[in-house]
Amino acid sequence: MSHSVFYAELPWPETERRVRAGAPVFLPLGATEQHGRHMALNTDVVLPTSIAARVARRVDGLVLPAVAYGNRSQPKTGGGPSFPGTLNLAANTFSFIVRDLICELYRQNVRRVVTVNGHYENVWPTIEGIELALDAIGRDRAQGLKIIRIDHWDMIRKSTLERVFPSGYPGIELEHASVLETSMMLALRPELVDLKQALNDGPACFLPYDRYPEPPPEVPMSGVLSLTEGSSAEKGEWLLRDCEDGIVDIVNREFFAR
Amino acid sequence: MSHSVFYAELPWPETERRVRAGAPVFLPLGATEQHGRHMALNTDVVLPTSIAARVARRVDGLVLPAVAYGNRSQPKTGGGPSFPGTLNLAANTFSFIVRDLICELYRQNVRRVVTVNGHYENVWPTIEGIELALDAIGRDRAQGLKIIRIDHWDMIRKSTLERVFPSGYPGIELEHASVLETSMMLALRPELVDLKQALNDGPACFLPYDRYPEPPPEVPMSGVLSLTEGSSAEKGEWLLRDCEDGIVDIVNREFFAR
Amino acid sequence: MSHSVFYAELPWPETERRVRAGAPVFLPLGATEQHGRHMALNTDVVLPTSIAARVARRVDGLVLPAVAYGNRSQPKTGGGPSFPGTLNLAANTFSFIVRDLICELYRQNVRRVVTVNGHYENVWPTIEGIELALDAIGRDRAQGLKIIRIDHWDMIRKSTLERVFPSGYPGIELEHASVLETSMMLALRPELVDLKQALNDGPACFLPYDRYPEPPPEVPMSGVLSLTEGSSAEKGEWLLRDCEDGIVDIVNREFFAR
Amino acid sequence: MSHSVFYAELPWPETERRVRAGAPVFLPLGATEQHGRHMALNTDVVLPTSIAARVARRVDGLVLPAVAYGNRSQPKTGGGPSFPGTLNLAANTFSFIVRDLICELYRQNVRRVVTVNGHYENVWPTIEGIELALDAIGRDRAQGLKIIRIDHWDMIRKSTLERVFPSGYPGIELEHASVLETSMMLALRPELVDLKQALNDGPACFLPYDRYPEPPPEVPMSGVLSLTEGSSAEKGEWLLRDCEDGIVDIVNREFFAR
Amino acid sequence: MSHSVFYAELPWPETERRVRAGAPVFLPLGATEQHGRHMALNTDVVLPTSIAARVARRVDGLVLPAVAYGNRSQPKTGGGPSFPGTLNLAANTFSFIVRDLICELYRQNVRRVVTVNGHYENVWPTIEGIELALDAIGRDRAQGLKIIRIDHWDMIRKSTLERVFPSGYPGIELEHASVLETSMMLALRPELVDLKQALNDGPACFLPYDRYPEPPPEVPMSGVLSLTEGSSAEKGEWLLRDCEDGIVDIVNREFFAR
Amino acid sequence: MSHSVFYAELPWPETERRVRAGAPVFLPLGATEQHGRHMALNTDVVLPTSIAARVARRVDGLVLPAVAYGNRSQPKTGGGPSFPGTLNLAANTFSFIVRDLICELYRQNVRRVVTVNGHYENVWPTIEGIELALDAIGRDRAQGLKIIRIDHWDMIRKSTLERVFPSGYPGIELEHASVLETSMMLALRPELVDLKQALNDGPACFLPYDRYPEPPPEVPMSGVLSLTEGSSAEKGEWLLRDCEDGIVDIVNREFFAR
Repeated sequence: MSHSVFYAELPWPETERRVRAGAPVFLPLGATEQHGRHMALNTDVVLPTSIAARVARRVDGLVLPAVAYGNRSQPKTGGGPSFPGTLNLAANTFSFIVRDLICELYRQNVRRVVTVNGHYENVWPTIEGIELALDAIGRDRAQGLKIIRIDHWDMIRKSTLERVFPSGYPGIELEHASVLETSMMLALRPELVDLKQALNDGPACFLPYDRYPEPPPEVPMSGVLSLTEGSSAEKGEWLLRDCEDGIVDIVNREFFAR
Repeated sequence: MSHSVFYAELPWPETERRVRAGAPVFLPLGATEQHGRHMALNTDVVLPTSIAARVARRVDGLVLPAVAYGNRSQPKTGGGPSFPGTLNLAANTFSFIVRDLICELYRQNVRRVVTVNGHYENVWPTIEGIELALDAIGRDRAQGLKIIRIDHWDMIRKSTLERVFPSGYPGIELEHASVLETSMMLALRPELVDLKQALNDGPACFLPYDRYPEPPPEVPMSGVLSLTEGSSAEKGEWLLRDCEDGIVDIVNREFFAR
Repeated sequence: MSHSVFYAELPWPETERRVRAGAPVFLPLGATEQHGRHMALNTDVVLPTSIAARVARRVDGLVLPAVAYGNRSQPKTGGGPSFPGTLNLAANTFSFIVRDLICELYRQNVRRVVTVNGHYENVWPTIEGIELALDAIGRDRAQGLKIIRIDHWDMIRKSTLERVFPSGYPGIELEHASVLETSMMLALRPELVDLKQALNDGPACFLPYDRYPEPPPEVPMSGVLSLTEGSSAEKGEWLLRDCEDGIVDIVNREFFAR
Repeated sequence: MSHSVFYAELPWPETERRVRAGAPVFLPLGATEQHGRHMALNTDVVLPTSIAARVARRVDGLVLPAVAYGNRSQPKTGGGPSFPGTLNLAANTFSFIVRDLICELYRQNVRRVVTVNGHYENVWPTIEGIELALDAIGRDRAQGLKIIRIDHWDMIRKSTLERVFPSGYPGIELEHASVLETSMMLALRPELVDLKQALNDGPACFLPYDRYPEPPPEVPMSGVLSLTEGSSAEKGEWLLRDCEDGIVDIVNREFFAR
Repeated sequence: MSHSVFYAELPWPETERRVRAGAPVFLPLGATEQHGRHMALNTDVVLPTSIAARVARRVDGLVLPAVAYGNRSQPKTGGGPSFPGTLNLAANTFSFIVRDLICELYRQNVRRVVTVNGHYENVWPTIEGIELALDAIGRDRAQGLKIIRIDHWDMIRKSTLERVFPSGYPGIELEHASVLETSMMLALRPELVDLKQALNDGPACFLPYDRYPEPPPEVPMSGVLSLTEGSSAEKGEWLLRDCEDGIVDIVNREFFAR
Repeated sequence: MSHSVFYAELPWPETERRVRAGAPVFLPLGATEQHGRHMALNTDVVLPTSIAARVARRVDGLVLPAVAYGNRSQPKTGGGPSFPGTLNLAANTFSFIVRDLICELYRQNVRRVVTVNGHYENVWPTIEGIELALDAIGRDRAQGLKIIRIDHWDMIRKSTLERVFPSGYPGIELEHASVLETSMMLALRPELVDLKQALNDGPACFLPYDRYPEPPPEVPMSGVLSLTEGSSAEKGEWLLRDCEDGIVDIVNREFFAR
């Protein structure tokens, strides 16, 4: 038990010991959201949790339980609320979770926090939650505390994207449930992917504005915003390694100045 | 993939199909909270999730991702916030999570919801979250919706308690991290329990009132409110079976009138 | 005027003088809730206010105006919201009242606060309100402040329960509007009780789970969860004395170390 | 018991019967606030409650428990927060109380609500609470509901003011703890007034703007904004009769078109 | 550019320089609200902004962008929400804006803040916002900060009112969209006034209580609560000069002790 | 007066008439935020307001007063909160403003709403505010309502970007206070720009993650994230025309199906 990097798999004396030893603490931020006909709804939970665990093993870190529900899925970045399966939190609720957890980590003497996000729509309420926590802790007192906010897709090297997309990277905006996420899931949890079910009805061609309350008709029926073709576990491993290495570097530089 | 009872391990078309077929949906409500020197912090997540999964398999149900952080741990029922390891949410945050998820389930056409709670302090903010959701949905519209709120320990038969505690049941209040929870964890995740680390410094002897802000000194050092002695996987299995059977009966009676 | 223990019956110079002298301040927490066909809706206000006043006279304390509306009545503990007469506050509203009042008492230099609760559903939002107040005050500054949270029924001695219920105590859960509350009201405000109107249609036999939005049909028509038979002013006086003595002891021990 | 006009002194079947019969329901809104060296902190509770009870007896109405804590006292209208004794609620808290109670009254089939306010600072959060309740109920559904919001001092006839202040009425702004309130308290609860303690250090001479955070030095030491001289129970009775008659007229006109 | 008194028309180095030099910062608080058939909806924005700018020029101050939406218009003071054109904020929203801005000004080292209000219904949520800000900043730290809250109409000299209303001042309550506001708008933005459109269907004769949800029928059809007759740019200039001089005096006395 | 496209410059009968005639209503969303040493803090207000006005003139629309304060400036997109001059709202506050205004527009029978955003950090709380408004209105009722959410920079044609940046477009992320915004301000309000003050210390080279509470040292001293060199009023006019034409097209297509 006590060798796990998962915070919640440890008894309290062991978490206390590791926090005292300076362990960075990783908070995976996910969602329960449609990811195409071919992939499980927990994609945004599996990816940041797995990446955080890989990093934690290398930097003597701890991985908290993921926040398994994310901020409102939007049509252009996740298919939107009208898709079956997707379960959203309001931005305020999500921000309060982040605020509470950071306050609690601070109270438990954690001073090195890394949020690892796997759901695009979480970016802004995470920032808000961090700001609310810093207000609650007190900006002066918070000086000893350092919080790193990472979106895992930002860790992928340009050279890797070129290898994955030899005919050109369509851009992160459309990558929902597409080659990047699908490849990483194939590497990590192949039983949660069934490429035969992929419709390949993308890529989506969105108009440059949003409409409410009716969702835009441009979202592909499958929920895949770009394409899944060419996804593979091997590519997934390239991508995961980028994420892992990238975050290890950040942790070393920001927390240990090495 | 598509045989899992875990909602988030399915692609969206399969959750949609099952919801349409009338699947009851189970929401495990847990916590990340100290459970003694001998047991992992995720005890309140593992138990309701595992129980919900056993039930779901028998009633064609679906199990949502657990809410892995619970309402503020209190000294008399969970050791309180001063214990290392414990990470709390404010009541309001917890209620908003429950509210949002029930609204979302309703929006996704789920009409049979069961919350399975594993953390005593969640009882009241869960009730509040349900009430807020019913207000948001509209009490009239909510007529087709039925929500069952279960605390798993209430499913344990009196006869089982007599078997587990031949010399008398100390009462649910003190059972935090004690024989009931330890036995069930031994049956489900033995690698997360190390009975040799148990201090057996209980049972706690609490005064009949609460004090703030200083926590009461009566909480045992270990965090175990009663005792762990006599815990066993076998007893755990008796208890889990009670929980499973109890909830299956409730689901059949309340949702299917059988 | 200036001999009253009721804070709000004094002019400001007198409250200031007493607070400076170290007077413990009691905040009764009540409800406006059905209490059977035989008893007034203010039972949960009368009891904690009267008990607090008796205690205050013995310890030179002050009794604040009661919070006369309580957190949402639940079917199993108070008959639930569907009963005519019952007027509920949301948990959040109740917590904010408690938070604001504790912050204000702190600002007014009160450092000895006792909440005396008479409505079961208030327990959790009171705890939340206290925690929110401590956050607002600042945990460091709050060191000089001590808050005692008491539910009056926890003050009743086991021996008294045995005298009141010679054939066995049914347990506090079902005591809503039953022998304990009715007896104490007969002792304090007999004009608010009319035992001839009691239906004696209990005790309630609740299933071990909650259902929403429809209330459970097991609530007795009268709203009395157990029975009123055998209630008497004499028993009420026994019970009130237990509450009074119990709280006096707590106040002496916690605030004056005597 | 069942002849009382006080809602909370009745058992639930009687409140139900009277509501069904069309009883207007009065909600007194008060405060716990300094009212000079000569008068009790509960002045703003006693006045609207007593006035509401007098009215209720004449129109077969019901009087709810008063909200005993008011919105933040301001220097120019109540002496402000720096006075010992005063205990304030935040505007939001106060609005939520009003919102919840009006929603609950609506749920209990009350369609005739009168708020009777005794604390100037409550005016705006009461309006906000009413608006929030109407939003929560739904503006369409709320058509059958009528809410009357009254500040008791607006019921006083000009001719009465001339009788009370033969040398000119100083205006309602400065009447805090002054002749009007003192006279009505002398008529209702003479034991809560001790005119000998009055300092007569007023009237306050306020500058035409507010300053924060330091309170303005213009507030008289006593907390009486104008003067108490000339207060008498007889004048109090004149004033109370105006309030009573005024509200009876309003109730008859607005609810019964008579 | 850098000679403007308007904060938002400057580049950041210039605002920083002026704040360091001790510039008082003015926050105009307005509304988008009907002001009769003859005047633009932005009257409550134009007046406090223009007045603040005149003052700022004399005291080396800075004028922030106005809050252009106000707290809920009420029938008796602004015609109420049922008038076309009027767009309201909830009290809570308005208070949060004021809270956030004062916290931000404090963070930007501003210690001299003046709110200049042009919409009666903003008075109370402004006070609440200031109090919330002081709580957030910390009352101790806030000692160096001074906030002046001014309603511009309170700056008008009695002698000026006598000149404007030779036959008697009807009182500020009914002045919505009437002679005072109309005259000042004629002086400042004559193109936003068309006196020929004025109906002169007032003055309103309000009953001394409020009714919800139906608005009272006493509001004049035009939305003008009193009368516009006799409005002129010349009178407007008298009034504006009073406001300007009054605030200059306050600023000198409160911030510079001169 | 009545020819203005600015909603708040009209008297209420004219706004009512135009809304009845089907006028689309534009809500500019801005900020008060540093925009380099060379440009005014109101850039994010001026741009969307001016663009909305140009569009409104062509489609018989109305332009509401801009929301002049924006959601928290972030280092990578606006320099962050540590820059002098910048005044932020919390996400929640901003969302509530948007929610309230959309609800009010709906109440005023507006069914065609366009938010025109000029501040990147507003994107997410605007979405949240729209969702909250739709919840408050009721999704069913909201069917007749259509809300278009536009960020003005998304209207710029690729060909224009190529003309403006002959040596390659650095990407929107770094365009804060840079060539696009500076050029448009030169075209609209040249007196608010002083190119001589530009430091040209960019472009910023941000690391691919965020750090709190200390801001990242990579923000250029000037606050300009990219460069201002090459900005001109002529280019500004090209860009504004794109924005204008783009939104006119959207309005025609979405609201008038032409």
